[in-house]
Amino acid sequence: MPVRARLLIDCPDRPGIVAATSGLLARHGANIVELDQHAAGGDPPVFFSRIVVDVPGGAAGLDALRADFAATVAAPHDMTWRLVPVDEPRRIVVLVSREPHGLTELLWRWERGELGADIACVVSNHPDHRERVERFGVPYHHVPATRANRPEAEAEILRIVGEEAPDLVVLARYMQILTGGFLDRVGRPVINIHHSFLPAFVGAEPYRQARERGVKIVGATAHYVTEELDAGPIIEQDVVRIDHRATLDELVALGADVERQVLGRAVRWHLQDRVIVHRRSTVVF
Amino acid sequence: MPVRARLLIDCPDRPGIVAATSGLLARHGANIVELDQHAAGGDPPVFFSRIVVDVPGGAAGLDALRADFAATVAAPHDMTWRLVPVDEPRRIVVLVSREPHGLTELLWRWERGELGADIACVVSNHPDHRERVERFGVPYHHVPATRANRPEAEAEILRIVGEEAPDLVVLARYMQILTGGFLDRVGRPVINIHHSFLPAFVGAEPYRQARERGVKIVGATAHYVTEELDAGPIIEQDVVRIDHRATLDELVALGADVERQVLGRAVRWHLQDRVIVHRRSTVVF
Amino acid sequence: MPVRARLLIDCPDRPGIVAATSGLLARHGANIVELDQHAAGGDPPVFFSRIVVDVPGGAAGLDALRADFAATVAAPHDMTWRLVPVDEPRRIVVLVSREPHGLTELLWRWERGELGADIACVVSNHPDHRERVERFGVPYHHVPATRANRPEAEAEILRIVGEEAPDLVVLARYMQILTGGFLDRVGRPVINIHHSFLPAFVGAEPYRQARERGVKIVGATAHYVTEELDAGPIIEQDVVRIDHRATLDELVALGADVERQVLGRAVRWHLQDRVIVHRRSTVVF
Amino acid sequence: MPVRARLLIDCPDRPGIVAATSGLLARHGANIVELDQHAAGGDPPVFFSRIVVDVPGGAAGLDALRADFAATVAAPHDMTWRLVPVDEPRRIVVLVSREPHGLTELLWRWERGELGADIACVVSNHPDHRERVERFGVPYHHVPATRANRPEAEAEILRIVGEEAPDLVVLARYMQILTGGFLDRVGRPVINIHHSFLPAFVGAEPYRQARERGVKIVGATAHYVTEELDAGPIIEQDVVRIDHRATLDELVALGADVERQVLGRAVRWHLQDRVIVHRRSTVVF
Repeated sequence: MPVRARLLIDCPDRPGIVAATSGLLARHGANIVELDQHAAGGDPPVFFSRIVVDVPGGAAGLDALRADFAATVAAPHDMTWRLVPVDEPRRIVVLVSREPHGLTELLWRWERGELGADIACVVSNHPDHRERVERFGVPYHHVPATRANRPEAEAEILRIVGEEAPDLVVLARYMQILTGGFLDRVGRPVINIHHSFLPAFVGAEPYRQARERGVKIVGATAHYVTEELDAGPIIEQDVVRIDHRATLDELVALGADVERQVLGRAVRWHLQDRVIVHRRSTVVF
Repeated sequence: MPVRARLLIDCPDRPGIVAATSGLLARHGANIVELDQHAAGGDPPVFFSRIVVDVPGGAAGLDALRADFAATVAAPHDMTWRLVPVDEPRRIVVLVSREPHGLTELLWRWERGELGADIACVVSNHPDHRERVERFGVPYHHVPATRANRPEAEAEILRIVGEEAPDLVVLARYMQILTGGFLDRVGRPVINIHHSFLPAFVGAEPYRQARERGVKIVGATAHYVTEELDAGPIIEQDVVRIDHRATLDELVALGADVERQVLGRAVRWHLQDRVIVHRRSTVVF
Repeated sequence: MPVRARLLIDCPDRPGIVAATSGLLARHGANIVELDQHAAGGDPPVFFSRIVVDVPGGAAGLDALRADFAATVAAPHDMTWRLVPVDEPRRIVVLVSREPHGLTELLWRWERGELGADIACVVSNHPDHRERVERFGVPYHHVPATRANRPEAEAEILRIVGEEAPDLVVLARYMQILTGGFLDRVGRPVINIHHSFLPAFVGAEPYRQARERGVKIVGATAHYVTEELDAGPIIEQDVVRIDHRATLDELVALGADVERQVLGRAVRWHLQDRVIVHRRSTVVF
Repeated sequence: MPVRARLLIDCPDRPGIVAATSGLLARHGANIVELDQHAAGGDPPVFFSRIVVDVPGGAAGLDALRADFAATVAAPHDMTWRLVPVDEPRRIVVLVSREPHGLTELLWRWERGELGADIACVVSNHPDHRERVERFGVPYHHVPATRANRPEAEAEILRIVGEEAPDLVVLARYMQILTGGFLDRVGRPVINIHHSFLPAFVGAEPYRQARERGVKIVGATAHYVTEELDAGPIIEQDVVRIDHRATLDELVALGADVERQVLGRAVRWHLQDRVIVHRRSTVVF
């Protein structure tokens, strides 16, 4: 029974990478189901690939392929790489503040089996969403956060994340600023949904800014969190057309619909290993 | 034979404006074909309306309505207003630098009868587009512009615009910065097409910025020109989805297609009196 | 304290309707907040309007306006009309089969206060969604439906609808065909969400048809139900771009996201009195 | 100096195709710049790939690679394949009737260097577009076509196409129905732009049909022409949102903007060898 797995590759670009990789896969009898590759120029040029393969021989076959790949392909080509079964269980931790629409979207997609991960737990600086979360059988941690207790709150969140050891932390409209120290120590990717089409309307109250500025389209941006606020590598964006009749409340409601779609896509794509960070940007296969 | 005309109204919002206006129109036998209105809140609240009417009695009927409206409706309601026949001829002057796609779009829509105005002439700081323009029978003025000769160049453009007396000046990728003095003296609305989704990527080389930042959508913005660069009231915006495979050249080409659509719509809507400036923003009926 | 109300008008088009209507509103001190109108050509021409007004004098003021409008404006202009407070409570009944995404969207928007109505109850020919529905405090009726028991099933649904007396019945992927007799007797508007961009792919399995035909865009359509299958007046449509890599399952999942957005918008717009049926089509203000 | 070339592959899907192909490319020192592949399921499963490579050794290097590939990779894998330099000159013949917007778009993209081919000549059953075409230096053939002279008209068009020997024939709103015999004998791909979102509104006057049916979105479809009218494999589609205010003339104008974008993309993609026909559908890389 073959094991379906994803091979992710990131290495300096030079001739022969595809041949070396696909040659080894063929020698192991592994059949390529999907193959995406991107040669990013620049100096030095970089090569990225995502290959979905059916590997024969079960877990042992996968281990053999992994060992052989490491020695004969990855090492000589200086690759950063991973080979993971597609059904390897994944888990996320969700942080949320007052606005629940991103959280609800994730819970709902999880219930529909469309998320590609389990929700290990939800952490919020508000007590309000406990019932909404617990009725899905998901634990809810209320960690009050104020400017004064930020160190303690971050420590408590780090403790919870450390215990759950998730593959991904999602800020589904978590409105507390996280310190650089937190990001250093959290030790896994953090995805944030920003309620504007970045880099327009960085900072607080983007819908109010959009309304005053009279833009004709508003949007949302899902990005990896870095120390520089609202400037991490963008994973996905989308927009919706508005006009002068939209009140601020209607902008917020329309925007929420875009936010949850964008967040849902970004989290799913990340969990399917489709997203690779490249400098300040991303490759999304 | 009735005259079809547009009535544009901008006044402090208070009860009775629609009744007073439509009552007068009814007494003159004028039939309302389209009516748009917008009550912008704020302090003080403002009322805008655009009404297309069929006015009986030819030009004399229109004059009579205008006089009556001025005295009995506009004055008591403190209105800024206009009543203009829809077939009143309009003329535009187009300024362009090296990139011709905005200019070509305008020439083409004019040829198809979709522009709603004649192109009085084209002014460029490059000599390259003469043939492209003159084969449509439109005069072409080459006005070299450098940092050194800016005052002379602006004076020459003002002279040409003054002579043509157009209803609108269009910057169809005119890449010279116009001074505040120019804008004061040009004496008519100026529409610019900016090659980004403002307020993202203000300034030069927006496509390069977009590529480095890894945005997933690029766009274009048509706006009225004000002294503050790239900050005038926005008329129309649109976007196109991109991905990591797009080279800078492809971004520029994709963007050009969006730019010409956005510019075409903005110019047409302006010429149909659909656009009203309200503070830093616009109402587009 | 003024009452905010919506005035809906549908009548033969002729000069003076706006003047008569807005004149009467002004005499009652009612302030126009929003005004949309549409003069549909055809023979005879038809006039539609939706006016949001603040009417002084509370319920008594509204009654007085209603009586005066009926006598002095509506009767002479042959109007079909309604004047209803915007906060008049509305209720819907939702019918659903196996696929729950439309139902979940409605429950969720109701919970967010974005639906504009209460969900009186849910009726399904499947028992599966009981828990999902009842945890929102909404009653769930399981009415098994087969080809054999169609008359009894329809009678039971008619009984439930009759008891609840909702303003609207929503088919949120209810896959049983309703008879003409049912539609005659249900006595209120019925909105259906169809999982294709109608009139393309009428009938069963539209996503399979779309895949085989190789279309590059799939969509969804919300429409009023009439006796002719999939041919009722369209309220709203939207689409999503696809490519050759999409499997049938992915098409269905992508389509579900469009369906729930389109259904959500159509139901909300209907409940805000924004939708007017005109021949085989609709006017959506 | 390496030659950049495109390798197109269509063959039964089985393990080892990528390895065999990329292995041979590596042995010839050819560097992969872009690689797209698609494993279409079905029975039998089919494999498609488009690979852009830099082949060393100039034309001789390309010939050597071609010979080796034919013998050692293509034959054993039963491949239909081509290896063509990206700068191989391409030529198209355009057929057009009364509506010139598709033709103008192609002329304009050609002038901007964005078409990827030269326009060998334009053939029309109307005399009107001669000046528009000849001012670009492109020959114009007026071939009157009526129901009565169809055989003669088709013979004359076949003669012109035969003489020009283009890579592609484009029907840019050519409204004469072409017979099966014509398609058999024309001997190259024919792309048509249809002014609706197929398969909705097959046949004549789609905008009128769309308006009567009250759809909220209209579109355009570019497809390869087959004997069955409006049913050939779809290359590209796009849509634009409309509302009840749009007159038939406005629908036609809005639609024309979509048509020219869709046609422009389809022709460019075809000329870049991005489009592969697969049963009734296409793969677009």
